[in-house]
Amino acid sequence: MIGPRYTPLAASLPATVPFVGPETQERARGRLFRARLGANESLFGPSPRAVAAMTLAASDVWMYGDPEIHELRAAIAADHGVAPANVTVGEGIDGLLGCLVRLLVAPGDPVVTSDGAYPTFGFHVAGFGGVLHKVPYRGPHEDPEALVDMARKVGAKLVYLANPDNPMGSHHPAATVLAMIEALPPGTLLVLDEAYVELAPEGTAPKIAAEDPRVIRFRTFSKAHGMAGLRVGYAIAAAPLIAAFDKVRNHFGVGRIAQAGALAALADRDWLAEVQTQVALSREGIAAIARGCGLVPLPSATNFVTIDCGGDGTFARAVLKALIDRDIFVRMPFVAPHDRCIRVSCGRAAELDAFAQALPEALAAASAGGGV
Amino acid sequence: MIGPRYTPLAASLPATVPFVGPETQERARGRLFRARLGANESLFGPSPRAVAAMTLAASDVWMYGDPEIHELRAAIAADHGVAPANVTVGEGIDGLLGCLVRLLVAPGDPVVTSDGAYPTFGFHVAGFGGVLHKVPYRGPHEDPEALVDMARKVGAKLVYLANPDNPMGSHHPAATVLAMIEALPPGTLLVLDEAYVELAPEGTAPKIAAEDPRVIRFRTFSKAHGMAGLRVGYAIAAAPLIAAFDKVRNHFGVGRIAQAGALAALADRDWLAEVQTQVALSREGIAAIARGCGLVPLPSATNFVTIDCGGDGTFARAVLKALIDRDIFVRMPFVAPHDRCIRVSCGRAAELDAFAQALPEALAAASAGGGV
Repeated sequence: MIGPRYTPLAASLPATVPFVGPETQERARGRLFRARLGANESLFGPSPRAVAAMTLAASDVWMYGDPEIHELRAAIAADHGVAPANVTVGEGIDGLLGCLVRLLVAPGDPVVTSDGAYPTFGFHVAGFGGVLHKVPYRGPHEDPEALVDMARKVGAKLVYLANPDNPMGSHHPAATVLAMIEALPPGTLLVLDEAYVELAPEGTAPKIAAEDPRVIRFRTFSKAHGMAGLRVGYAIAAAPLIAAFDKVRNHFGVGRIAQAGALAALADRDWLAEVQTQVALSREGIAAIARGCGLVPLPSATNFVTIDCGGDGTFARAVLKALIDRDIFVRMPFVAPHDRCIRVSCGRAAELDAFAQALPEALAAASAGGGV
Repeated sequence: MIGPRYTPLAASLPATVPFVGPETQERARGRLFRARLGANESLFGPSPRAVAAMTLAASDVWMYGDPEIHELRAAIAADHGVAPANVTVGEGIDGLLGCLVRLLVAPGDPVVTSDGAYPTFGFHVAGFGGVLHKVPYRGPHEDPEALVDMARKVGAKLVYLANPDNPMGSHHPAATVLAMIEALPPGTLLVLDEAYVELAPEGTAPKIAAEDPRVIRFRTFSKAHGMAGLRVGYAIAAAPLIAAFDKVRNHFGVGRIAQAGALAALADRDWLAEVQTQVALSREGIAAIARGCGLVPLPSATNFVTIDCGGDGTFARAVLKALIDRDIFVRMPFVAPHDRCIRVSCGRAAELDAFAQALPEALAAASAGGGV
């Protein structure tokens, strides 16, 4: 009996998982984490109004969600001053990025990103056979000029920019992004990932005309809205590009609870403001803990703080391991020179206390040779 | 400014939506449906234990779901007597079908299905450039011999069989499916869609060895488990094929509430038994209503009854329209000769009463010339 005949592309792909979940680590360790600070989830939780809406929707879950996602798209459109035809909603930014790449990238097509930027974007590009060209960061920032230069050089169909950036927490002001859009070569689409932008300083999100064909921006309910486990993200772009998503998307993929929760979260501006305040305080707290240990916290426009451990990647990996051994779930950038850092998500007092307790021990353990 | 450069395949695709949701119709009509009997949802609702689990999970939704979906996969594996490595979970059968087609179907690759079978499968095949070869039903049944013959003739990579069948409600006994598997040409994978199988007679689901490389079976929490709006389906197949899904799936796509709800539903055998009882009663009720109007209800192994309206497609479409005009949401098969039928989902007494009231009026209206 012979097995399935995969496409040549599928046969060539590794069974990569872009991220290992903390649950996988907990199962391997046989012990739960004390502080879940590795996945840039919002430990401040979802809006109570969103929880109420999801609870109500749980009993209605026998019904498929509206495949047009009409109410949520209308609310998002109103929030952004665009038309519903400029908005599509999908299973997180991850799911939407997959659709976008599928629409534009055939085997061999060039795509540009930064070396060390969000790996799931690269996962999708590889998954559709695209060729990823990477440019280095400039310090802790993605480098818009280098991205545009590379896009021009290789004729990129897509160029990816996260603003604010993950994993570094840095950001560019709106004017820099607008200048990047103006400099794009013809036929290169800017993939502007704004997953963290609600947590960035005023003036980070550029004003972009709804029908500008040069850019598609992505937002999510996973970060500031505290609903990573709900899987709702959205894209804003020119209507023809948004309509193209209907060619390939999983039309019932955003379910009934997801639509209800996101709609309620979007309406709860007080909760968002509260989270913004708590995140700002928590960033200060993490930075103070880092400084207290003689480390350098990088400025953050997100719900995490990237901390320069002051050594090389080997040292930072040892610190990370020692933190995990102490039941603190954190992650770190994959790529040098950023892999001198660890990345710590904002949390409440309890988690920050646990981190404050573990960090000096972890640094001592790492300095002593990487052991526990 | 030039826009995005789509792939030739994406540019060629229509922006088809396989199904129009009842919400879309309600918005167009400016009026809600009285009875939602068109989408084969379970009007008996989800397990109360699943509702409780989803409610609990709503507050935890700030956390990403486990990307390995470990607990749910383990529970499904135990339920089926296979290993967790034989199980993958995705965003409904729709989402899983999309991944499967992506793994196997490159532009021009042949795929076989029945003319009038589940359109979303065809949507995915077209979406990856596959060529769909269709064979007719034999009466109300999909025709396994014809499917296998066509698969051999065209060298199909995939052949699709829904057992029980949607939209006809018919089923084959397990032995027929097993014979079909034995007859498959080498290198053709059977896509066995068992979305409705929990509602079919004992002996419908065949026993298939976990590592049989010739077949992948799909199940869902959307039908008997009453959670269509949660978006959880699963596939059971040989471990190498299951592992291949990791190459392309949206790893965080099944969220925290979805995993919790499905796990609780799977454990609630009493609720499943109750739904099975209610569905059987409701099928009888729908059949009696149809017979009372002089129509012929087809035998059903699902949570819907397909009713032969006794005329041609034009007449059945007029009946459908007249039912919708009377606020009864039903659907019908798309393809002749099945489009002589309408398809009515099982419901509670209130919905069946509404249908019983509307059907004679709708038939009269259709007979009078298709008007209201």
